[in-house]
Amino acid sequence: MATTDAQDGRRLTARGARTRAKIVTAAADLMYVQGVGATTLDDVLAASGVSKSQLYHHFEGKDALVRAVVDLVGERVLERERDALGRVSTIRGLRRWRDSLVRNNALRHGAYGCALGALAAAIADQDDLARKALSTLFVEWQALLTDVLHRLRDGGELPPSAPVERLATGLMGALQGGYLLAQTAHDVTPMATSLDMALAHLESLSAG
Amino acid sequence: MATTDAQDGRRLTARGARTRAKIVTAAADLMYVQGVGATTLDDVLAASGVSKSQLYHHFEGKDALVRAVVDLVGERVLERERDALGRVSTIRGLRRWRDSLVRNNALRHGAYGCALGALAAAIADQDDLARKALSTLFVEWQALLTDVLHRLRDGGELPPSAPVERLATGLMGALQGGYLLAQTAHDVTPMATSLDMALAHLESLSAG
Repeated sequence: MATTDAQDGRRLTARGARTRAKIVTAAADLMYVQGVGATTLDDVLAASGVSKSQLYHHFEGKDALVRAVVDLVGERVLERERDALGRVSTIRGLRRWRDSLVRNNALRHGAYGCALGALAAAIADQDDLARKALSTLFVEWQALLTDVLHRLRDGGELPPSAPVERLATGLMGALQGGYLLAQTAHDVTPMATSLDMALAHLESLSAG
Repeated sequence: MATTDAQDGRRLTARGARTRAKIVTAAADLMYVQGVGATTLDDVLAASGVSKSQLYHHFEGKDALVRAVVDLVGERVLERERDALGRVSTIRGLRRWRDSLVRNNALRHGAYGCALGALAAAIADQDDLARKALSTLFVEWQALLTDVLHRLRDGGELPPSAPVERLATGLMGALQGGYLLAQTAHDVTPMATSLDMALAHLESLSAG
């Protein structure tokens, strides 16, 4: 990414792309920790070490920058999830996926929640373009889960009648709700519990 | 509520309490629709018709006002949930609870999410006092679900071994995650699907 400019789609020089990436990375980090609303363009300037004219060369304003942050965070999360889920074909593999997400969230005692879910909560109702991009990213993430559940079905770990699309939605709901409860409690336990119920449900189907 | 002042805990006159309630109600409505971050004290002044000196008489600043909004929204949500869940003792009753939440969320096509969950996502990592208040409110809400599940167990709709506390966490996770997915999709479907998986899991336990 970051080889074309968000503002007018023209190609960037290698140097322009590096500057743009520096801005978006700094903005993503700040928005993750401080929240989208509390992060100003001045914060981003200070954190990225980029000049104001460089920033405005790449981004018309905060909305444009937020949209670039959505793209970056979405790309990061989907890359992580493709790695984690791409070859999972057993419930045991799904448990390892759950363990890894819970372990990472425990390192910060639940704080900040899911990078993508937090962006969705912050901007879904404020910027419809950003909301649509987030919605597409969630669809892609859920498709990775749907693929896993198809492989579980093919391998006999789920019955042929298992509604894989809806189960993938339920898994994503359990994950996102778990992140939010853990963020509020500053304790990873409710996230682990929420995912465990979803996985127990998959197991109950396989035993049924 | 609203008979003592948030700022110094002194008792308010009836008129002072009305002014304070007007400010908090206006702030809660604005923050629900615009988000916490995007709502300024000037917005609240304009929407409530209260003077700046009145506002600062009751609230030191935005943080104090946000905490009062958390109290108000928490009270509203818990009152609604006590009404909805207080006498539920069957899975069928739990389905009616689910139907009512989904129907209300469908009216706004998923927008804005859960009033309490949206506040949690916006401020849990920015204000630790507000986070603790939100965490307590979620614990109270979840206790209502735990009580329902106890009654299901007493009535034979859940087996004696059912881990009611953890199932209540799972239900709350499914609800909150469902709200967030619906908010992002501007479509209530993923919320309905997420809750349905949680309820199907309870039913699978009762059949087991």
